Amino acid sequence: MDTHGEAAQTAADGRAGTAAEAVHESIGDWAACSADPHYRAAVVDLLGALAYGELSAFERLAEDAKLAPNLADKAALAEMAAAEFHHYRLLHDRLAAIGADPDESMQPFVEPLDSFHRMTAPADWLEGLVKAFVGDAIASDFYREVAVRLDDDTRDLVLSVMADTGHGQFAVAKVRTAIEQEPRVGGRLALWGRRLMGEALSQAQRVVAERDALSNLLIGGAEVRGFDLVEVGKMFNRITEAHTRRMAALGLAS
Amino acid sequence: MDTHGEAAQTAADGRAGTAAEAVHESIGDWAACSADPHYRAAVVDLLGALAYGELSAFERLAEDAKLAPNLADKAALAEMAAAEFHHYRLLHDRLAAIGADPDESMQPFVEPLDSFHRMTAPADWLEGLVKAFVGDAIASDFYREVAVRLDDDTRDLVLSVMADTGHGQFAVAKVRTAIEQEPRVGGRLALWGRRLMGEALSQAQRVVAERDALSNLLIGGAEVRGFDLVEVGKMFNRITEAHTRRMAALGLAS
Repeated sequence: MDTHGEAAQTAADGRAGTAAEAVHESIGDWAACSADPHYRAAVVDLLGALAYGELSAFERLAEDAKLAPNLADKAALAEMAAAEFHHYRLLHDRLAAIGADPDESMQPFVEPLDSFHRMTAPADWLEGLVKAFVGDAIASDFYREVAVRLDDDTRDLVLSVMADTGHGQFAVAKVRTAIEQEPRVGGRLALWGRRLMGEALSQAQRVVAERDALSNLLIGGAEVRGFDLVEVGKMFNRITEAHTRRMAALGLAS
Repeated sequence: MDTHGEAAQTAADGRAGTAAEAVHESIGDWAACSADPHYRAAVVDLLGALAYGELSAFERLAEDAKLAPNLADKAALAEMAAAEFHHYRLLHDRLAAIGADPDESMQPFVEPLDSFHRMTAPADWLEGLVKAFVGDAIASDFYREVAVRLDDDTRDLVLSVMADTGHGQFAVAKVRTAIEQEPRVGGRLALWGRRLMGEALSQAQRVVAERDALSNLLIGGAEVRGFDLVEVGKMFNRITEAHTRRMAALGLAS
């Protein structure tokens, strides 16, 4: 789909150029859409998942910042963590504004996200960098994909959070340099990148299987803008492909 | 010095009412003052110490957030951590703007501040809360004290960072409730508060002893607005007194 040049550019700005960028019609604003209790429940689920995703990303990045070899690198990862916390706050406040209990809304996603982070605790600084970059980019891809299926107000929020991603870019040059200096590092980090994507997909599938309302939003119920299971599969494929291109841009065969 | 009512108010807004609040004369702006290399070195030292103080506070608060009993409490401590990171960024950028290497400027303070945090790792959530509240307040007191001895530009920066403190206030009600529910918790936390202040003073004295330029700023050299050793002692006393009043307001005899 992309030329090699576009793939490098995609990797450079940390975002995937996907079909989801195509022009889409509005399904209405929050006031109109939320009259449907299924739609409302789906958005509460989605915001809860995103909010805990950001809060747990904050925690893990702050933890992984300890692996930094110097103060500048530590601060770069800490800066990402602070940005994730800011995203968390926006999502949390939106949940409260629409009358949902933010903590209750996040609760179903605590275990899957904690599991993801537990299974992918970086063993060293380079693994931490790759995880920060890949995690940031996958989150950005997912936000972009899901945004088109939302009412105008929720979409504006999701897009404004997404616009503030890309903090993982500092990792690219550092990982490339490390691989140039010691090529066999590349093999280890390529494996690591595959494991990150595998665990992310595995937890995402678990969530989709367990959360009816959220799955409905992704799959498309009667009241929700049409999306079928094939489309959900395609979405995961697009995100995986974007990941593959980014790993290649990092100098890693995925 | 304060009445009991004022002490409670002081504790409630997280700041100490000290002599340093008195009106003071300007010693000039940064361009004028920094012509003196001793003054310049002192400010670089001060900003380096404050910057690493904020970065290490970020790290420790993010770590201590893990002890939180629920998501709302975790987010409250994470919010403090994100605020400290923002302060770090302001101080870091100011160092770069005046031509100092931020990482080099922070380096002398890494060991004292890491030692402080190592010696005061909270054993549980309540100790973490008390540390967050006390640490935030001591930092605020110190900023306020030191601000009056600075050129206009550096003082503006220090005061703007300080104006954003007070995030530790959420801890007050929680600690009070815990003590009401189980009074003997109060004894343990009172000891803990004393230990926090003791370690803070011990590391501060170590820094003053080792850093000539910074000590000069506090003590007052020929080119620096006059402050003698007795005044430095008084400053530490004022900060300790403010701490004592705050601990009392928390329901803890210090």
